[in-house]
Formats: sequence, structure tokens, C-alpha cells
Amino acid sequence: MAAGEVARAGEERIRWAGAQMEVLGRVAARLAEERALAGVRIGACLHLTAETANLARALVGGGAEVMLCAANPLSTQDDVVRALNAGGGVRASGRRGESARARLRALRAVLASDPQLILDDGAELIAGAARARGRQRSLLAAAEETSAGLITARALHGEGRLPCPVYAVNESRAERTFNDRFGTGQSTLDGILRATNLLLAGRTVVVIGYGPTGRGVALRARGAGAVVIVCEVDPMRALEARMEGYEVLPALVAAERGDVFITVTGSRNVLRAEHFARMHDGAVLANAGHFDVEISLSDLGAAARERESVRPLVERYTLADGRRLNLLAEGRVVNLAAGEGHPAAVMDISFALQALCVERAARASEPLAIGIHPVPEEIDRAVAALKLAALGVEIDAESDEQQRYRTLWER
Amino acid sequence: MAAGEVARAGEERIRWAGAQMEVLGRVAARLAEERALAGVRIGACLHLTAETANLARALVGGGAEVMLCAANPLSTQDDVVRALNAGGGVRASGRRGESARARLRALRAVLASDPQLILDDGAELIAGAARARGRQRSLLAAAEETSAGLITARALHGEGRLPCPVYAVNESRAERTFNDRFGTGQSTLDGILRATNLLLAGRTVVVIGYGPTGRGVALRARGAGAVVIVCEVDPMRALEARMEGYEVLPALVAAERGDVFITVTGSRNVLRAEHFARMHDGAVLANAGHFDVEISLSDLGAAARERESVRPLVERYTLADGRRLNLLAEGRVVNLAAGEGHPAAVMDISFALQALCVERAARASEPLAIGIHPVPEEIDRAVAALKLAALGVEIDAESDEQQRYRTLWER
Amino acid sequence: MAAGEVARAGEERIRWAGAQMEVLGRVAARLAEERALAGVRIGACLHLTAETANLARALVGGGAEVMLCAANPLSTQDDVVRALNAGGGVRASGRRGESARARLRALRAVLASDPQLILDDGAELIAGAARARGRQRSLLAAAEETSAGLITARALHGEGRLPCPVYAVNESRAERTFNDRFGTGQSTLDGILRATNLLLAGRTVVVIGYGPTGRGVALRARGAGAVVIVCEVDPMRALEARMEGYEVLPALVAAERGDVFITVTGSRNVLRAEHFARMHDGAVLANAGHFDVEISLSDLGAAARERESVRPLVERYTLADGRRLNLLAEGRVVNLAAGEGHPAAVMDISFALQALCVERAARASEPLAIGIHPVPEEIDRAVAALKLAALGVEIDAESDEQQRYRTLWER
Amino acid sequence: MAAGEVARAGEERIRWAGAQMEVLGRVAARLAEERALAGVRIGACLHLTAETANLARALVGGGAEVMLCAANPLSTQDDVVRALNAGGGVRASGRRGESARARLRALRAVLASDPQLILDDGAELIAGAARARGRQRSLLAAAEETSAGLITARALHGEGRLPCPVYAVNESRAERTFNDRFGTGQSTLDGILRATNLLLAGRTVVVIGYGPTGRGVALRARGAGAVVIVCEVDPMRALEARMEGYEVLPALVAAERGDVFITVTGSRNVLRAEHFARMHDGAVLANAGHFDVEISLSDLGAAARERESVRPLVERYTLADGRRLNLLAEGRVVNLAAGEGHPAAVMDISFALQALCVERAARASEPLAIGIHPVPEEIDRAVAALKLAALGVEIDAESDEQQRYRTLWER
Repeated sequence: MAAGEVARAGEERIRWAGAQMEVLGRVAARLAEERALAGVRIGACLHLTAETANLARALVGGGAEVMLCAANPLSTQDDVVRALNAGGGVRASGRRGESARARLRALRAVLASDPQLILDDGAELIAGAARARGRQRSLLAAAEETSAGLITARALHGEGRLPCPVYAVNESRAERTFNDRFGTGQSTLDGILRATNLLLAGRTVVVIGYGPTGRGVALRARGAGAVVIVCEVDPMRALEARMEGYEVLPALVAAERGDVFITVTGSRNVLRAEHFARMHDGAVLANAGHFDVEISLSDLGAAARERESVRPLVERYTLADGRRLNLLAEGRVVNLAAGEGHPAAVMDISFALQALCVERAARASEPLAIGIHPVPEEIDRAVAALKLAALGVEIDAESDEQQRYRTLWER
Repeated sequence: MAAGEVARAGEERIRWAGAQMEVLGRVAARLAEERALAGVRIGACLHLTAETANLARALVGGGAEVMLCAANPLSTQDDVVRALNAGGGVRASGRRGESARARLRALRAVLASDPQLILDDGAELIAGAARARGRQRSLLAAAEETSAGLITARALHGEGRLPCPVYAVNESRAERTFNDRFGTGQSTLDGILRATNLLLAGRTVVVIGYGPTGRGVALRARGAGAVVIVCEVDPMRALEARMEGYEVLPALVAAERGDVFITVTGSRNVLRAEHFARMHDGAVLANAGHFDVEISLSDLGAAARERESVRPLVERYTLADGRRLNLLAEGRVVNLAAGEGHPAAVMDISFALQALCVERAARASEPLAIGIHPVPEEIDRAVAALKLAALGVEIDAESDEQQRYRTLWER
Repeated sequence: MAAGEVARAGEERIRWAGAQMEVLGRVAARLAEERALAGVRIGACLHLTAETANLARALVGGGAEVMLCAANPLSTQDDVVRALNAGGGVRASGRRGESARARLRALRAVLASDPQLILDDGAELIAGAARARGRQRSLLAAAEETSAGLITARALHGEGRLPCPVYAVNESRAERTFNDRFGTGQSTLDGILRATNLLLAGRTVVVIGYGPTGRGVALRARGAGAVVIVCEVDPMRALEARMEGYEVLPALVAAERGDVFITVTGSRNVLRAEHFARMHDGAVLANAGHFDVEISLSDLGAAARERESVRPLVERYTLADGRRLNLLAEGRVVNLAAGEGHPAAVMDISFALQALCVERAARASEPLAIGIHPVPEEIDRAVAALKLAALGVEIDAESDEQQRYRTLWER
Repeated sequence: MAAGEVARAGEERIRWAGAQMEVLGRVAARLAEERALAGVRIGACLHLTAETANLARALVGGGAEVMLCAANPLSTQDDVVRALNAGGGVRASGRRGESARARLRALRAVLASDPQLILDDGAELIAGAARARGRQRSLLAAAEETSAGLITARALHGEGRLPCPVYAVNESRAERTFNDRFGTGQSTLDGILRATNLLLAGRTVVVIGYGPTGRGVALRARGAGAVVIVCEVDPMRALEARMEGYEVLPALVAAERGDVFITVTGSRNVLRAEHFARMHDGAVLANAGHFDVEISLSDLGAAARERESVRPLVERYTLADGRRLNLLAEGRVVNLAAGEGHPAAVMDISFALQALCVERAARASEPLAIGIHPVPEEIDRAVAALKLAALGVEIDAESDEQQRYRTLWER
């Protein structure tokens, strides 16, 4: 395709996504009207997709300058990058499948532009800013999208090295519900189906990790007819999984029963040599966690006598005893690598939250303290109310009498 | 039945419940061994059931003196009261269906014993102590079981009148999950089935209020095959209900569609004249909230031209136009009034938390500050771990390497 | 209570059930208007409950004489029997817990009245008529309610001894859906909860037998939050269970995992010594099949060193090694013995089918051939349409063009 | 790609599918060993996919000659066709997106080869043979895969024009369960997600038609978190949908509420002008029925003032009042057109049934009567048992005593 055609395809993709991002759309309209971000420099390390493009344009519409690099080279949509750069106000740098080195270069360029606000997905800009504190003169605040990134940010804060206040977008209630549970739940299974075309009904799916995301993955796997087993190290989460009707097992026991394994722990090496040794022939391995360290690729490689690509994004490892394990997307986050990533409607919520946090930080009369800050509850509620309106759902309001009652103690 | 026989029946009921309260059982064994509560005076206003009896005995086993009155006269199990009083260390006062006046008298007697620790279910002892501050000389702390009670406690605290620090047992994660979602979810539907013997499949159930309890009620109603509609005033909760696949409607619209209405809001008059005017003939009205104010009985009485009892716990109101609405248990909390209350396995969790909070308060070297305190996370985790053991569920532990990874930022 | 009071209580129970039996109500109105059964003698062996009372009265209203005996002495509602006999046209004989001998006597009395039509629940009247062929001169047809009864009827037919044509009411599509799946599904779990007050969430429920009824039981157990395991000897049914997301295991393996075991096979001794030997302490045993032969009571008795009643309808067997197994309702069908039996709305469908089959047989110009006959499809459809109307559900009709298209082959 | 590369890609696709078709694999091994189809000429009109390739090779392995044409040009996988023709024994003719005329030509060529056995998907070969009776001298039997095709076959039989006995593969219990409910259920939603990347949670999905396939679609839509509304003209099916917890509405009412509409009726024009007039902006229209006549494209075209392609397989119709309706895959069957069609594991069941029916017809000592024949129950059971083995599921066998009991009437 010619460059123009590519950009046009990207433009259409952006518009299709935009049509499903009604919350961000309403926020964008107000930002534009108020020129709320006039002259603000924003640096962002996000998945370079059609949804991100809509966020970037909403910020630009409010007056900001936005510079973008890729959180994950496997999720980059090249036509969208082309379309963004063809429009105005946004500089996006990234290419699907680019090398680690190329990606790092782009990330450094974003930091070098001395952004006032950071949008992060994995805390890579935040960590970069921590290393190069002196050079990030203008930095006011950041908003972080992932729980993995917040672990990093908190660790930095613990060492006194956090470069700016960070909004924990990922921990907002709206985000937890939409992005983690419903968004990743659907898109993880969607990615696995696209990669494998498996029938899930009747299969045993082992979900390792029962945080908000694992919970969504388990829910959707069950909704697709699978027998679902949950593995979890936290007793409270394990108990909750069990109470919701899942079988809960140690991973070594589950290893013998699963047809499909999905890691979503935020930890590393949760599937490793001892698990591979017990899995049956044909098992499928997928990771839905942020980093590609949850399935030990070194253990898998060491156990295999042969390795071949059998479908796009499916690599078959043949073990010494002849059993074959199918690894999806090289152990990278499967919803982004093998699917289209989050549905636009999910990112709608996340990015409306990001835009509102950025606006608040940009407009704050006093700077926020260094530290991890929850998304203010009124932003959460505003986003939920806009989303209900977008879905056409009406709800009741409390009467004055009921409000009084709620805070009254002497009845 | 002769008194002895009644006590024996109560004793059997207590033992049956005890057999399902394995977490409390293990806690009780340790308290007894350590004589952890030797000489402590505990006053409790709880549902006088077989499960409460097991809690009282666990405390007595640890050395405490326990005095009990009823949180709700409709839930009192007379044989259990008899059995408790026939044993040692516990004084229990209450009778199923006793008058408001009789119940109040018992409540005052508990306060008059000058308890050091309070176990409350609706904050009635706490509020009583607030009114009579001077006389509660020994009061160290309280543990409150319900969200309604915590509203009261917080209101008192807001006015500077809270008489002691209060553990918010109801807001602990274990409690939210078990008691509110799974416990009340099952027992509310169970109470409705016992009162009506309805077939839920194919019926439309309207759940008003989507807090932790409403969520459990909706989940179980759907699990029983009903079409479930949710009404909610909080946009975030409303949105969550919708994302979980429920239809969300204003209550006036839902009023026209429901076959069964279940209020669980913590508010008052959520079903009132305007809703009754729209309901269809034969609709069933039940309340799963703590207080009997969610369905407006005065509006219902005013709208009815006739009122008769058609089954135990079912009162039929015939409206002026001939439509008949069936009110369950006089609008009192239906799982307690029409069923057996929470399954023992649920109360096991709540009461283990209560016992551990009481122990902590009794053993604290320094007094806790006045205010509402969350249940300490280690108590929550300990209870979850004991419960998993009771269910025979094993889980993995994080490796040292994984623990390090979780707190590491530079990867 | 005085006899009059008992009859009045029974009358109220009949009316409450009647209010939920709208399909039968509409059929009854037409039968009465047309005097469709004038002078017809009907003998029935059914559960003597409020729902059956409504059927009997619908037939009497159409002009029939009805004589009733009990299909199961544990399900008999004494007040209903009293109310029926106090009204006109029906003679009902039975008492809750009556002896096998008393029940047999009543059954023989029904046959001795030389009925023209039989309504059966377990084929006991049919089998009785087979034995006493000569004396059943007037017998035109029977309608059988259970799959267990149809096995008997088919066996009789195989031996050339079936005394009359039999409508397989239980195999009608409406019946399969309502009575077996939804009715027994809900009421079986309801019976178990009433007997035990267990919390099902988090528990492992083993459903043995995955016919229409077992399927309903499994669905509701899952809907209540249990981990559900299915055991089944038919490969097609076993496969269907697995595709619906249940774990499918041999019963001996499941025996080690279950907290609650529910047999619903139509076979015998499906739980026996070898299974009891593997169950864990506290396991609950319930039967949802028609006959009380699915759990081997003789094996259980032989394995136990002690046996005591711990709650109404719960008998605890303590085995030699100290494990305790809790048998519900002596292994009799648990929804009838421990609950209130099928909800009225379910029996509404069954009994409307029965009434319409009886009407068809009574009005037939030519006798039906000896054999097992399916319920005619138009009766099935008529019942479904009446039920939708009762639920307030409207549906579309096919257009003429669409009807033509459906039968057209050349497109 | 060069031709050889294309064939290699097709070969890999065939092998990946084959690895998941264990039932067919076992059947194929036996057919090969027994040379069960030596010299038999088989003509097939099926979707030209990797799964069909495995069936064709299983037949060829048994000694048959197989000639293939396409049931739907949108589902043809060109690389698979290439690979098949590069191998031996199979002649496959078809190209993705080929013209109706080209497809018809291929279909006639299959008939011209005078097949002894026919495998059909839509009864096009059967209907062709009916028209050209004289020329189909060798035709022994056919197996039909779809319910739409069976309607045609029955209509032909009603007119006395059916050219041969036809096995109703689609009506076998195994097929109903796998192909219709679980297979099409999953793949229809998968196709819609791939075409749109919608988030289903929180959306309203209207499923029109509640036969076995519609039921699967509804189940999976609910499993994905959607609010599901069912429309159905048959009262029994409508009632079943309602009892399973779906809202059931006339299509005109549902038209106002849906976000996604899925037709699966086997009828025509089920969505037409009057429905489009009520739908809201952004609604998505998909068809899961066999033929592309369920959504009236002429009505949609007439109502639109503009029409543009917005994503691959998504065409946006802008109506006169500005509302935009998104039609997927031109109203063709969406799981095949927008997804990868049925998962291999589903087709495994269908094609094992087809292979066994073909074998039976080829080996029959006496010809089958002209007419529609159910798949023999023992074939159904054999396939289920093989599938359980493939899933690693073991089940119990009835004991001799239990078998006797099942057929015994005098207990």
C-alpha cells in the first residue's frame, strides 16, 4: 500500500474506535471548548493503537503537544502511527515488531522533550525520569495505566526516587472494573481464540493469578464453557475464587489437568520447568500479564528438543519425550499481541480517566505531593455517569430524605 | 416440649452449626489454650441463633463472661437461648417475636453490666453506650457486624460522640465476600423460597441496591434462572451491574416489570406509593436490608383496601383496583425472618473475625484511638487461610525470588 | 388444631398454589364451561399436595369423579387432604408418613373403583392394573408423570402386559423443560438447603446422573456457587456435561472430592460401600431420583458403627474410622421429602398437560392403541403459549411469506 | 507468495486442525486399515477449510475418490485448496470470493462425476441431483450437514423428488450439541468480535431465533457479559429461553433496545424496514443463519442514504435521519465469513459422523429406503465415547445389576 493509503486505513481505524469512545468524546469536547491544556507538553508511552490515537487527539484538541512512543512493539498499529503523524499536534514514534533498541531510542526522545505531564503504561517513562532526574525540569505529574507499572512506581517512591506525583489510574474503581476485569477478560480470550481457533467449551483452562484481571479472564473462560481452575498465592483471593465456584489448585497439580494455561500474576517464572514436565501433549501456554516473564522461556527452551512455528503467533515446543507445548505470542501479553488489544469501549474509560487526571494536574493551583495518588472519587463517578449515558442507561437519584437518612444515626 | 427437651434440641442445633464452623473452631481452641480472654466482660447484641451460640462459647472458653441480647426478635431461636442459659458462662436474653419493649429492656441490661468489649449488629449497643457515656466506664472497644451499624457509628464519630474505638468487621474483605455477597445472597433467596415456594426460573427479579449484598442477591437470582433487573443510585455501582450483564433501570420503570422485588439499599422508602401503583398483580415484596424501613409499610397500608395473611410470613395487600401485592415477613430482613439466617459456614467467617478482633482489643498493650478501624489485614488473611484449610484447598506460596521481584523496580 | 382449622389451612395452601397455576386455571375454566369430563371416573396416584388438589378440582369442575392416593407418604400434606375431602367430588386417601401397608391399601381402593382414566406418578396404578387386568374393565388410558414410571410401563409393554395406552407426560417437551430441569433443579437444592442450611458457594457438589433432571440440579448447584462434578454412564450425556463446563469423573474418583452428593440416575446402588469408603468426614448424601434405591442404605448401615438423627431429616452415620456421613430424608426424593416439592408454577405445566391428555382420551372418538404415546405436539404448544401469556411475555408470529419459505425448497 | 509456499501454508493449517480432530483421526485410522471405502466415488459440497481437508483425506485414506466444491465462497481457504490439490486423491475446486457462477460450475462438475455418495452442506448437491435425476445413476446416499439443507431435503421428499436416502447428520444428538450449540455459539461471537472489536460486556445483544444454534449464541453472549434478549416465534422455544433467564420480546420491541442483532432463524427477512426504523445509532447487524436472507438487504439499502465500508467486513449504512447501522459480512453467515468458522474440535465431531454415515451407506448389504434417516444411535454414542477419550475424560459403566434394574418393571 502507498503511504497515503496506509494513513487513510489508519484514519478509518481511529474513527471506528472513536465512535465507540463516547466518554472520551464528551471529555474531549469540553477540553477543546475550554482550551484546558493550552501549551502543555505531554509525553506518553502507550500501546500505539487507534484508541490511544483518540486520547492523543483529545489532548491536542485541548491545546496540548503530545509525543508518543510504544509500550509494546507487538501492539503497534503501523497505519495508526502513520495517520497520527500525518495529522497535527502529535508526534508518534514506533513500528510493529521494532527492536528493543529502537523502542528505547523513542522512549528517550520522549523524555528529552522535557514533558510536563507523563502518561505511562508500565512506568517506563517514570523510571526513565527517575534515572535522569536533573533533566526532567518541567515534570509536574504522571498517570500510570498498569498495576505492574505501579509496583515500579511504589518501589521508586520507597527509595525516595519517584520523580513526580503519580495518579494510579489502574487502581481507580472504574479502571479496575472495565480495563482489568471486563476489558482484559474478553480480549485475552479473544487473543487466544484468534491465535489458535480452539473450542473452549469442554476444555480445561488454568488461570494463574486471581487479581482483578485474572478474575475477568476466569469469568470469560467459564462463560465460554471451559472447566476453569484457578491458581493463586494470596489466601484471600484464593478463597474468593473458590467461593465463586472455581476449583483452586496448586499450579503443579493444575499443570497435569490444563489444556490452556493463562498466566496473569504480575510475578515471574510462574510456569517453569517443573510445570512443563507435567503438562499433557498439546497444551497451550499464554500470558496475560504485563511483562513477558511469567512463562519461563529459558526453561521452556531448555526442555525442548525442537521448536517450530505452526501458525502465526503459535510456536510449538517439542519436548524430549515427544509432548508438544504451544506457546502463544512468545509469552508476551496475548490480548495485545494476538488480538486487537482492548476493545475501544474499555479504553474509552481508561483514557477518559487519564485525560481528566492530566487536566487536573495541569490546572492544579498547588502542586500535588510526590507519591502515588488515587484517582479522585469525583473523577471516577463522573466517568461512570458519562458511560451510563453512553449506554443509554438511566438511574435514580437519592431523594433529599434518603440522603439525610444515610448520614443520620438516631432513628 | 418440656424445657429440658427444648434445651436438648437447641444443643443439637448448636452442635450442627458448630460442625460447619471450622474456622471459629480452630480460633476457639487457641483462645481456650491460651486463656486469652480470662475475666473479660463482653456484651453482645446479635441474632440469637445457633451460630452466635458457638461464638459466645468460643469467648467463654477463652475465659470471658458473655451477656447476649437479640438484634432482631424474628431471628431468635428459642431452643438455642434455652440451651445457652442451661450451659455456663453465657447469659442470653430474648424470645422469638418478643415486643420492642422487652428487647430494649434486655439491651439495657447488657449495657448495665458495664462490658469491656461490645459485639454489635446494628450499633444498638454502641448507640446506647453513646447516650449513657458516663456509665460505660470499662468500655475498651466494639466490633460492628453490619454496614447499617457502621453508618450509625460514623455519624456518632462525626458528632464526637463515639464511645469507643470500633472495628468495622463488616468492611473486612473476608466479611464482604462471605457474609454480604455469598451468605446474604444465598440466604435471601432461600428465605423468599421458603416463604413463597415460587419457581424463580422465568420470573423477573428486581434487586434494588447493588452494594456487596445486592450483588450477591442478584448473582444468586440469576443463578436460579431469573431475569434480573438492578436499580441503583450510585453511578459506579450501576455501571458495574450493567457490565456484569444485568439490565439497569430506574425503580419506577422496573416496578412495572418485576415479579419479585428485593430491597437491599441501607436507605429508606425505596419502594413506596408510586412504585406500588405500577406493580402488577401478584408481585412479591421482600427486604434484605438491615432495617425494616426500605419498603414503606405506611404507603402500602394506605394503598390497600384489604390485608390478609395467606401463608406464614406472607401478607397479601389488596389494592383499591384489585391488584394484590404480597409482602414477606412484614418487610423485615427476609433471610433471617423467613429462612434460617446465614448458613453456619458464613457466620463462621464473621465470628472468627469478631473473636480475633475482640482478642486483639483485649490484649492490646495500648488502647486503640477512638474511631472506626479496619480489621487488620493479617486477621483477614489468617481467617482466609484457615477457611481454605477447612475446605481442603491447598495453594502455592510465592518463592523468595518471586517475592523479591514483586518489590523490585529495576528489571 | 381442630379439624376445621386444619381444613382451612389446607384450603389456603390450595389457593396460594392455585394463584400460581395460571395455565391449569385457564384449562380448568374451559373444561368447566364445556363440562368436558362429565361422568368420567378418574383414579390418581400422585403426591398429595396443594398443586395436585388444584388438578383434582379442575377435573371435578369438568364433571369428573376423582379418587386420589399418595405416590409418596413423605410428601403428603395432611391439611390439603383434609380440605379436599371437605370439598366435593374428590376422595383423597393418605397421611404424611403413613405405613407402606396403609398406602398400598389406598392404592388398591383406587383400582377397585374401576377408573376409566389413570393419572400416575411412578406407574403404580398402571402396574396394579396390569396385575389385575380382568377387573379393570373400564380403563381407557393413563397418563404417567415420571421417567421411572415410564420405564416400568415400557417393560410391561415389552411383556405384552400393558393394561392401557399410556401418555408419556414426562417426556413431553414442556414437561422435560419445566418439571425435570427447572422444577426439580430448584426444588432439589431447596430441599437440601432446608435440611442442612449449608452454604453451597465454595462447596463441591457431585451430581450423579445427567438426564434432564440431573442437568437441572447441576445448573442450579453451579448457580449457587458450588464447584460441580458430574458422573454419568452414558457417553453422550457425559460429553454434554463436559461441554457445558462441568468436570466429569467416575463416581469413585468424585467420591473423594464431594461435599454434597446428589443421585439422580433412575438406577440403583449408585452410591454404595466402595464410595462411602472414600468420602470425607461430613459429606452429605441426598437422592433426587424417584425411588429411594439410588443410595444403598444397606451398605451405609453396614459401614456405620453408629447412627443418630442430628436435625429433622438429617441422619448421621458414623463409620468405623470415625468419618461421619449425613444422609438426608432416608434417601427418599429430597425435594419432596425435605422441601415443599415442586413449586406450583412447575406443577402448573405438568398438570395442565395431564388434564389435556385426560380430556383428549376421554373425548377420543376412537380408542388409542395400547402402547406408550407421546403427548401430542399441539398440546405441548398450547401449554407453552398459555404459560407465556401467564408470564406476560409476547412473541412474534411468522408471516405468511416466512411460513412459505420454511417449507419451500427451491430458493 | 509462490504457489508452493501457499500449498505449504495450507498444509500447516490442515495439520494444525488435524491435531485437534482426534475423533476423526481415530476413525480415519480404522478406515485406512480396513480400506473400508475402496473405490467409492464421493462428491462433497462443503466449506473448503482445513477441517474439511482432514475429512476428505480420511475418506481418501479409506480408499475413496473425493471431489469437493464450496458451500460458501466467503469461507474458502485458498491455501488449503492448493494443498489439497497438491496431495493425492482429492480434487477441490473453489476460490475465496469466487462468483456465484463459478461456484455453480464447480457444483455441476461434482454432480457430473456421478458420485455414489454425497456430503452436503445446504442440500445443493442433493437438490442438483433431484433436478437431474436421470444422470445420477450411481447415487446411493447422502449426508446433510445443516438444518437449512434438511428443510430442502424434506420438501423434496414431500414432493416425491428426493434422489436418495439422506442421513440427517445435523439432527444427530452429537451434532446438535457440538456443532450447533457450542461450535456456532463460540464462532459466531468470535466472528463478530473480529469484525468489530466491540466489548460485549454491558451491551445488549438481541438473538433472533432460539433453535439449537440460537441457544448457543445466546449462551455465549451472556457468558461474555452482555444483556441478552431473545426473539422467537415458536412458543415452546420462547418459553424455554425465558426459563433460562433471558428476556423474550417481539422483534419490534427488541429493535429499540439492541446494540448487536444476531439472526439465526432459518427464515427470511426477520430484520427488515420496520426494525431498521427503530434501531439506535451504531447498532451492529450480523447473521448466523445458513443463508444470507435473514437480514433484508433490499430494505436496508432502500432505507440508507449512504453506504461505506468502515472496516474489513463492516459496512456502514447511514439512514435518512442520520442513524448508522453496521452490517457485518454482507449479511452472510458471520462465523464463517468474519471468523475462521467452526473450531476444528467441533468439526471433528461433525466430520466423524459424516465419515461413519458414509461408511455405513457404502458397506450396507441392503440399500436404505429413500427418505430422511436419523444418524443411528450407535454412531452417535461411538463418536461421543471417542471424544471423551480425546478429552481424557473417563466415565463409569453400568453394572450388570443396574442394567437389569433399568429394564425391570416389578420392583
